[in-house]
Amino acid sequence: MASESGKLWGGRFVGAVDPIMEKFNASIAYDRHLWEVDVQGSKAYSRGLEKAGLLTKAEMDQILHGLDKVAEEWAQGTFKLNSNDEDIHTANERRLKELIGATAGKLHTGRSRNDQVVTDLRLWMRQTCSTLSGLLWELIRTMVDRAEAERDVLFPGYTHLQRAQPIRWSHWILSHAVALTRDSERLLEVRKRINVLPLGSGAIAGNPLGVDRELLRAELNFGAITLNSMDATSERDFVAEFLFWASLCMTHLSRMAEDLILYCTKEFSFVQLSDAYSPFSASTSVPSTGSSLMPQKKNPDSLELIRSKAGRVFGRCAGLLMTLKGLPSTYNKDLQEDKEAVFEVSDTMSAVLQVATGVISTLQIHQENMGQALSPDMLATDLAYYLVRKGMPFRQAHEASGKAVFMAETKGVALNQLSLQELQTISPLFSGDVICVWDYGHSVEQYGALGGTARSSVDWQIRQVRALLQAQQA
Amino acid sequence: MASESGKLWGGRFVGAVDPIMEKFNASIAYDRHLWEVDVQGSKAYSRGLEKAGLLTKAEMDQILHGLDKVAEEWAQGTFKLNSNDEDIHTANERRLKELIGATAGKLHTGRSRNDQVVTDLRLWMRQTCSTLSGLLWELIRTMVDRAEAERDVLFPGYTHLQRAQPIRWSHWILSHAVALTRDSERLLEVRKRINVLPLGSGAIAGNPLGVDRELLRAELNFGAITLNSMDATSERDFVAEFLFWASLCMTHLSRMAEDLILYCTKEFSFVQLSDAYSPFSASTSVPSTGSSLMPQKKNPDSLELIRSKAGRVFGRCAGLLMTLKGLPSTYNKDLQEDKEAVFEVSDTMSAVLQVATGVISTLQIHQENMGQALSPDMLATDLAYYLVRKGMPFRQAHEASGKAVFMAETKGVALNQLSLQELQTISPLFSGDVICVWDYGHSVEQYGALGGTARSSVDWQIRQVRALLQAQQA
Amino acid sequence: MASESGKLWGGRFVGAVDPIMEKFNASIAYDRHLWEVDVQGSKAYSRGLEKAGLLTKAEMDQILHGLDKVAEEWAQGTFKLNSNDEDIHTANERRLKELIGATAGKLHTGRSRNDQVVTDLRLWMRQTCSTLSGLLWELIRTMVDRAEAERDVLFPGYTHLQRAQPIRWSHWILSHAVALTRDSERLLEVRKRINVLPLGSGAIAGNPLGVDRELLRAELNFGAITLNSMDATSERDFVAEFLFWASLCMTHLSRMAEDLILYCTKEFSFVQLSDAYSPFSASTSVPSTGSSLMPQKKNPDSLELIRSKAGRVFGRCAGLLMTLKGLPSTYNKDLQEDKEAVFEVSDTMSAVLQVATGVISTLQIHQENMGQALSPDMLATDLAYYLVRKGMPFRQAHEASGKAVFMAETKGVALNQLSLQELQTISPLFSGDVICVWDYGHSVEQYGALGGTARSSVDWQIRQVRALLQAQQA
Amino acid sequence: MASESGKLWGGRFVGAVDPIMEKFNASIAYDRHLWEVDVQGSKAYSRGLEKAGLLTKAEMDQILHGLDKVAEEWAQGTFKLNSNDEDIHTANERRLKELIGATAGKLHTGRSRNDQVVTDLRLWMRQTCSTLSGLLWELIRTMVDRAEAERDVLFPGYTHLQRAQPIRWSHWILSHAVALTRDSERLLEVRKRINVLPLGSGAIAGNPLGVDRELLRAELNFGAITLNSMDATSERDFVAEFLFWASLCMTHLSRMAEDLILYCTKEFSFVQLSDAYSPFSASTSVPSTGSSLMPQKKNPDSLELIRSKAGRVFGRCAGLLMTLKGLPSTYNKDLQEDKEAVFEVSDTMSAVLQVATGVISTLQIHQENMGQALSPDMLATDLAYYLVRKGMPFRQAHEASGKAVFMAETKGVALNQLSLQELQTISPLFSGDVICVWDYGHSVEQYGALGGTARSSVDWQIRQVRALLQAQQA
Repeated sequence: MASESGKLWGGRFVGAVDPIMEKFNASIAYDRHLWEVDVQGSKAYSRGLEKAGLLTKAEMDQILHGLDKVAEEWAQGTFKLNSNDEDIHTANERRLKELIGATAGKLHTGRSRNDQVVTDLRLWMRQTCSTLSGLLWELIRTMVDRAEAERDVLFPGYTHLQRAQPIRWSHWILSHAVALTRDSERLLEVRKRINVLPLGSGAIAGNPLGVDRELLRAELNFGAITLNSMDATSERDFVAEFLFWASLCMTHLSRMAEDLILYCTKEFSFVQLSDAYSPFSASTSVPSTGSSLMPQKKNPDSLELIRSKAGRVFGRCAGLLMTLKGLPSTYNKDLQEDKEAVFEVSDTMSAVLQVATGVISTLQIHQENMGQALSPDMLATDLAYYLVRKGMPFRQAHEASGKAVFMAETKGVALNQLSLQELQTISPLFSGDVICVWDYGHSVEQYGALGGTARSSVDWQIRQVRALLQAQQA
Repeated sequence: MASESGKLWGGRFVGAVDPIMEKFNASIAYDRHLWEVDVQGSKAYSRGLEKAGLLTKAEMDQILHGLDKVAEEWAQGTFKLNSNDEDIHTANERRLKELIGATAGKLHTGRSRNDQVVTDLRLWMRQTCSTLSGLLWELIRTMVDRAEAERDVLFPGYTHLQRAQPIRWSHWILSHAVALTRDSERLLEVRKRINVLPLGSGAIAGNPLGVDRELLRAELNFGAITLNSMDATSERDFVAEFLFWASLCMTHLSRMAEDLILYCTKEFSFVQLSDAYSPFSASTSVPSTGSSLMPQKKNPDSLELIRSKAGRVFGRCAGLLMTLKGLPSTYNKDLQEDKEAVFEVSDTMSAVLQVATGVISTLQIHQENMGQALSPDMLATDLAYYLVRKGMPFRQAHEASGKAVFMAETKGVALNQLSLQELQTISPLFSGDVICVWDYGHSVEQYGALGGTARSSVDWQIRQVRALLQAQQA
Repeated sequence: MASESGKLWGGRFVGAVDPIMEKFNASIAYDRHLWEVDVQGSKAYSRGLEKAGLLTKAEMDQILHGLDKVAEEWAQGTFKLNSNDEDIHTANERRLKELIGATAGKLHTGRSRNDQVVTDLRLWMRQTCSTLSGLLWELIRTMVDRAEAERDVLFPGYTHLQRAQPIRWSHWILSHAVALTRDSERLLEVRKRINVLPLGSGAIAGNPLGVDRELLRAELNFGAITLNSMDATSERDFVAEFLFWASLCMTHLSRMAEDLILYCTKEFSFVQLSDAYSPFSASTSVPSTGSSLMPQKKNPDSLELIRSKAGRVFGRCAGLLMTLKGLPSTYNKDLQEDKEAVFEVSDTMSAVLQVATGVISTLQIHQENMGQALSPDMLATDLAYYLVRKGMPFRQAHEASGKAVFMAETKGVALNQLSLQELQTISPLFSGDVICVWDYGHSVEQYGALGGTARSSVDWQIRQVRALLQAQQA
Repeated sequence: MASESGKLWGGRFVGAVDPIMEKFNASIAYDRHLWEVDVQGSKAYSRGLEKAGLLTKAEMDQILHGLDKVAEEWAQGTFKLNSNDEDIHTANERRLKELIGATAGKLHTGRSRNDQVVTDLRLWMRQTCSTLSGLLWELIRTMVDRAEAERDVLFPGYTHLQRAQPIRWSHWILSHAVALTRDSERLLEVRKRINVLPLGSGAIAGNPLGVDRELLRAELNFGAITLNSMDATSERDFVAEFLFWASLCMTHLSRMAEDLILYCTKEFSFVQLSDAYSPFSASTSVPSTGSSLMPQKKNPDSLELIRSKAGRVFGRCAGLLMTLKGLPSTYNKDLQEDKEAVFEVSDTMSAVLQVATGVISTLQIHQENMGQALSPDMLATDLAYYLVRKGMPFRQAHEASGKAVFMAETKGVALNQLSLQELQTISPLFSGDVICVWDYGHSVEQYGALGGTARSSVDWQIRQVRALLQAQQA
């Protein structure tokens, strides 16, 4: 037979209470961030109770007033936690009771922590989505402004990290901005699903006291109400979606950071981070950072941190999905894992988006290096197109251009240094006008189809992204 | 100095070609699934070339005819792969050339495998999304039909797997159906982002030959065109989103499966799977399955497989995101990882959704066992509400009901067996009408707020879900 | 052209310093946990410098003394951080300089933060591994003690959550204890790889000043030294391994928790958690916890939290691996992600192991319910073995037993209620001694092969696990 | 009431058998890879049965002979699967029965598919581990051989992708080789835990017929036997460990690939892949690969594929852990997910290791470019050490060197072009011998501490790695 004290089995002695368990169980250390929305939710609920006849007008006013006082204490930093305040809901209701007495005991009528906490979290996340949307828009706007201003800068476009074709620098900027517009669109969709009211679902079966959920929805300005009380209290789709949204957005930013880290290398030397984002130990103005050993180092720390956070954020998404997998339906304590993930990811996204905006805002570009990195072999495709325009099927033209590349390599000269005679040994279609091929400015202007790197197309992209932002902000 | 043959370093001897590398590199083993959409994309592209003046009408017709022939061979299983066909694009163009000669070499003008493959994949996935939407709707519809038919069956609702409150069986079904409606909504959003045309983006810089991308879009019936050629050829958001969509949907199904596995246990005995989904070795009709050792076993294999697939599907999502993390922008060969993930997950989702529909369709419920599992302690909350209705603040009522629970436990009787006198020692508000509390049917009918377990609310849920389905199918 | 102020691009204004970047970059908020090992490492390094002739004995003593003072301040909580203390290394060296003056500037000779931080982390984790090993051993020991004491309790063994065969309760306990012994073994292996000294690797190229790394190793009691300075400063295998170790251990504990959560349900009723691990709102002694709505609820919160942490811990592992994927070799700032993961996972493991020990120590078992849950159909395999022992091939015996199961089901009786005549219609090999099959105690005693559920085998398991623990602690 | 046909609920019509479920359930499509080990396990088991008196010698011989015949059919490709062969175990036993008749029905006595399949998988993986060990050793050996041959090549070492200090090319090679030695060590540990026999555990309770598990162990050459039958049949630690082993190994290879991809860029130009690993479309010898659009492209496809596989392999690891999370103990059908993960990851690792060996074997290095990439600012740390050797505390020397870097930048000259007079304005400790600092060969030779980049230390590393390999192969 088992012993209550556990002595028999040689384990830790445990009495009625295990302090490690208590700490393990308590969420107040992090869910205190919800203080404001918890008060907000309770205020709406007390209005619902009044309408349902479960509170008199006077009781409601007393509760509303008390809740305002609770919020004031939090705002002013004077709220004192008790050792029994295991979560923010307990803490706020405990304090309310101290402030207004027994009437406080009517506030929780028909409500459960199950519907309360998920209402709080949705309120908090709805606000966070708006904040993050704003930061994301600012980043995109900064990129677009920069793209517009630097439209005439050309540099190599890479595929497989090999020089591919000349492109506009703005085309590169826009390639990342366009990716971020999808994140922006997705965030609005996630917000839409966050913006659904679960309050009035009780613990599992619903609300039995005639509380009008439409009233609660209107009070809290939600877009809709949840359909099923069991689902409402235990689904965390909106959390998983938010974490995945952040993971995908971070994946985009990790790719942009990777590009910029490369462009910052001595070998590429296309861009230079401002000192604010790349501590330089040799600079006396920022003495404590940079390499502790190598005086000459100027490292792209900001970009590396951005790149690294993709892992952290995705880890939270993976963790939550694993926690949800195979969980019996309705509320289980496992769901308590949702909040720390949300808080950490929100903080990370906020910092990353602002740092990225700062980096892009203050980045210096080395236009001359960019230009010098363009090389005639990057026009091999254009050489093929030259032949196509003269009537040669593309496959044949591609092969002919390949032969020219090979001939140039063999002779140890640049592709544009092959003589017309040499080119004509490859195809008689080559004539004097082939010289036009070797102009990088001319090359990019060919790509006039929508989405290409011609100036008109880049301008079109800028207009499109600006219109998207405007539409989303509406 | 490095040696070309590699002999110097003691490694494997490798000549001009490494067969392991060739196999490692080739994608034809799986991207052959794209044969139909690859032909479809090429047909549209040849129309674009004709309009741009790069093909004559006669050449276009020749190509279109040839492509139809290629498709026919695939459809009839007579297409023969060559050892040089490293991918479906190469294979189809090679065959086209065999069929129509040199004109075939004009088809790829201004196109790159980079924009070609992603166009193919989007076409394929667009179709898959429609198929999966249909299967998902069928599952939801089956659940809703069943919920409607079995509205009067009551059984225990659980939180933390502890008996919580009596609910309608239909309320449980609907809790899972409602979760799936969010998957359905999300799938439409993912499809919207899949349904964007990248063709005309070339390898990186765009299309230089005046191909009209709006024409291509219309030909292939896409909803929009991509904005930036660098992004278009290398972003795989739509793949990541699809994999995450599947992961979250599987998480829902894993939770439903978990519930049903529990309800299938001897201990719960609420439901019984049909033999088609739970092989029974003692049944002579299905001799080869079931336990190889224990003749009495009837295992819920179908549900366990559904539950398990949540891991597999999520693994594909995690894998792709890791592959994308920190990848330099534009096309890198790493992106080749996208297709196997998509194909495997699509197949898995298709099977899972159909099996889940079969399980739900054919599940037997043991209504008597469900009823017997309801116990008076599950009405403790209702007992508190009884006092609330008599004017007691909820916190006090909750405590009073808790005392009653404790008293019943101490006396070793059921909660509803406490006498009125005994109850009155806890609160004088108890009177004879307390007897109404002990009626499970009465209990569930209290939960009339929207989303609750009362019949009216369950009916409302059914109407809501049906309306959603109808709206989505529009 | 880019503007330094960033005004041109419409972004946030940023001067020489961006406070968000500074906070984003700083690690002091969490790496302060390394204060003690950082001092420890510096003390060893100053001994190395002295031996190499880079410090005089007097200088070394001054530094050692100063470092002891730094440590004392940390221990007493009097260490004051400056706003420039971006990490623990900077903070400690800054303070040392304040305490002992210019000699402090000699401490970092030939050292880099790259080798310093990874030395600190290894020292910290080495200690953590020892602590966690101890906690894990205590959990295993508790389980083994309990298994020994409760050897005679029988209950149903389940596969696929369907009743399978009678087993000893101790056999179940040991199945989880045995899994944990593998975690224990793996933790020792991880610790072995943690216990390797990187100090003396500098930033990348090594140490150029004749510091004797063997001396450093001996001073810090490491088992070996790292082989390559580039690898040493940038590999985080030991972190990834630790996080995976924790993930797999948590997977085990999540499965044990799942079993116990099921056994705690009303339907199974095999075990009951002590109040310390399952807050009960109806109990007046723990008023603030339990369900906020349902007075009768007693939820297995401790077990649900354990189960849920598997997700969190794995998320950290996944996050780190994603951060590492594709990272250029040597140190990149991305590696700064390692520490928070380690600290969080260590804290989680410590709490989980202790709570699990408490749960197992204090769990009550309901032996009577366990016994009543055994049913004759669980002996169907034994019935087949009965026939095997009479000479029937197993496949035939399995089929015969299946027929008996089917017959009993059809007749609506228990398997052991079939008469001998009825059994003989299935096989003439059945005779009077078949009655022995229906004894659960007799059944379990058959499983005498090593690893089985017979008493002798359970005893053997207990001895094996105890011997393992002893060997590992040696 | 539920309907058996499912018609009532509007779902798919399903009779006694659902073909989609049958396909979903069957594992024969992939577990047929286990044919050989399944026969091997059955042969050992029949020997165990004979010793236990459950088979006569003649019956055993008949079974052994029949099993050999089954294996022969598989080896020759003549084994014909039936539509009822849901898995390899069923298929083999079915065929055995066809070959030898009723005696075949005795083979499965006391065995369950639960212990059979996990025995098969362990046998298969044990062999795979040996194969992968061999391939890994070959890769390491190739790297070490190359490191030895190219010891005198210097090039820039990077941290944060910024030029840091001059190092030996061999030091870079060895940094990756050393990481792989840890993978090799870990693989041996994983193999040790794979090499444990579960056979004789039955379905859950063990083996009741006196089968001698030690005999089975010896027959199959396992290192030990599992301790607990419930654990033995349902733990998949060895699978999770193997998948994690592969994930970490792939992380290493992804980092090496990333470095080489960078070194292959035009901008770095340190190395060049052989054509076998980098298809070049302009080369007539490999016409069908390379860029379909850009004739000049030579892409490092092999390295990109290696880098990308880190995601896929980790995805399998993540997927399995999620499947295992919270699974009730003992066998559940969810575990069927293990095999496809193992097979796919084994194939991937085999290809990756061989391709990586090929890449390293055949890589050309551009020694001249490497030398030209060394620049005097990379010696700033050495300049500080120069001052340290003259007695200046390091912090002061670091600052002085930083000033020199800043002075050189301001003057627009290289660091080594500062005159002695200029240097002396920074510190009077500078004298004529400062000129020795500017020799890259001299610089690397300073790093003589173990693990550094001096020649003696690189030689030491080579010896250490060779000794490790030898020890592991023993």
